[in-house]
Amino acid sequence: MAIETLSEHACFGGVQGYYRHASDATRGAMKFSVFRPPQARGGAVPVLFCLAGLTCNEETFAIKAGAQRVAADLGLMLVAPDTSPRDTGMDGATGDWEFGEGAGFYLDATQAPWSQRFRMRSYVAEELPQVVADAFAADVDRAGIVGHSMGGHGALTLALTSPERFRSVSAFAPIVAPTQVPWGHKAFSRYLGEDRNGWETYDACALLRAGKRFASEPLVDQGLADTFLASQLQPERLEAACAAAGQPLTLRRHAGYDHGYFFIASFVEAHLRHHARILLGPQRA
Amino acid sequence: MAIETLSEHACFGGVQGYYRHASDATRGAMKFSVFRPPQARGGAVPVLFCLAGLTCNEETFAIKAGAQRVAADLGLMLVAPDTSPRDTGMDGATGDWEFGEGAGFYLDATQAPWSQRFRMRSYVAEELPQVVADAFAADVDRAGIVGHSMGGHGALTLALTSPERFRSVSAFAPIVAPTQVPWGHKAFSRYLGEDRNGWETYDACALLRAGKRFASEPLVDQGLADTFLASQLQPERLEAACAAAGQPLTLRRHAGYDHGYFFIASFVEAHLRHHARILLGPQRA
Repeated sequence: MAIETLSEHACFGGVQGYYRHASDATRGAMKFSVFRPPQARGGAVPVLFCLAGLTCNEETFAIKAGAQRVAADLGLMLVAPDTSPRDTGMDGATGDWEFGEGAGFYLDATQAPWSQRFRMRSYVAEELPQVVADAFAADVDRAGIVGHSMGGHGALTLALTSPERFRSVSAFAPIVAPTQVPWGHKAFSRYLGEDRNGWETYDACALLRAGKRFASEPLVDQGLADTFLASQLQPERLEAACAAAGQPLTLRRHAGYDHGYFFIASFVEAHLRHHARILLGPQRA
Repeated sequence: MAIETLSEHACFGGVQGYYRHASDATRGAMKFSVFRPPQARGGAVPVLFCLAGLTCNEETFAIKAGAQRVAADLGLMLVAPDTSPRDTGMDGATGDWEFGEGAGFYLDATQAPWSQRFRMRSYVAEELPQVVADAFAADVDRAGIVGHSMGGHGALTLALTSPERFRSVSAFAPIVAPTQVPWGHKAFSRYLGEDRNGWETYDACALLRAGKRFASEPLVDQGLADTFLASQLQPERLEAACAAAGQPLTLRRHAGYDHGYFFIASFVEAHLRHHARILLGPQRA
């Protein structure tokens, strides 16, 4: 599968690159970014998939999270996809930051016209790991997933439904129960239709109730000055669902921190070391 | 002098903020960003002024350089001004990324109409330190300056002409001899007029030849894959001018690194520790 290099930049002894390829899953061009740590010159390294939130793209995590320094130290590859297909030309796919382009919600849409292109679950869980394994020194059998907000929802639900693929998981300010909050109601009713039975496979709390488990204990950080905390995020729902399921969870609440990337940058080192402990072993993290 | 808080964000135990105020020097509203390290809650801390390059603004360094982690560790305040006055309404002030808004070149223009508003030298060296000292726990008697590209030119020239103000200095890929390269020719001929005698007070190499010296040894990093290296930057001119002047200089060349912020992020920790050694003492850096 051919990928096109858009740009590459030396960074902490490794390479930060931007790429584009023709995606089967989303039936169009998709962009993604990759940070290759210096260790990747000596052989395949574990991969951390990094999922961004509403309005973001494949550049956001690479530019704002400040994760490359620690990834270079640990020997982790960072792969960040775009948050949706782009340039779909579909009526209603642009102009609303909560739905459509930039707001793919890491699901496979079932409703026309969205089902033709908005298939980010298949893209992130299946196609992208294969593309990365083919093009880079990536050991995708040692892969973790992290996400922010809508991307936190993506990380949690993909880790629950593909635990063999994503062996470690963490999230910043994730949407933990989209079937219960306005962001999820709006997106799911359009992508998945009004029958809410189909929604639960994309809701981390519902998946836990249905018996799904993470391959390893998740790490979740949440700022208490996050303006979306009560209306859209509600981390107490994840705490309750994990407790009821006997699923270990580390959920940390941080006074004063908001929903933005200064919050993420402040705690990203802890997340990368969490993934490295699982993917590389505790002595290497 | 009243400043308006645009936003504030918890970051590495400190606060990253964006502010606006009515500037006397530039006769209009100016924005700047400040990172206050946690140590600033206990008293005034040293300040590092951070000057961005062409097309950038007060957000660029704050978002892309990844400097807050080390600043929080060392107890340094980071202050980043915009790169020029904005919304000037002057003919020719917008539409050219190398001149006008976003391209103030850290000088006081002498030519109409620019001399009315484009007075970034006075703004950065005199007005902004006072504004910061009045509003924050900033010890501006312990101040350093760092810059990138056009901002590196600003850092070097301001440190040479105001060594009592800027006791430490460093630069990433600076323009070291603007009187000798196209970026400088274009900007200086408009801001300062065609008489080149007036240009030399804004040229680091010319200032060194004229007897100016830094308060302490500068640290300069330059990537060798920088597309502007030969045409606009020419760090060998700074090396030669320092050598002829007996001015100590640390100039590091980095194979593979380009002109962007992934280069800056890779080496920003060394710069902050360089400033801290001078401003706080070697045992605190």
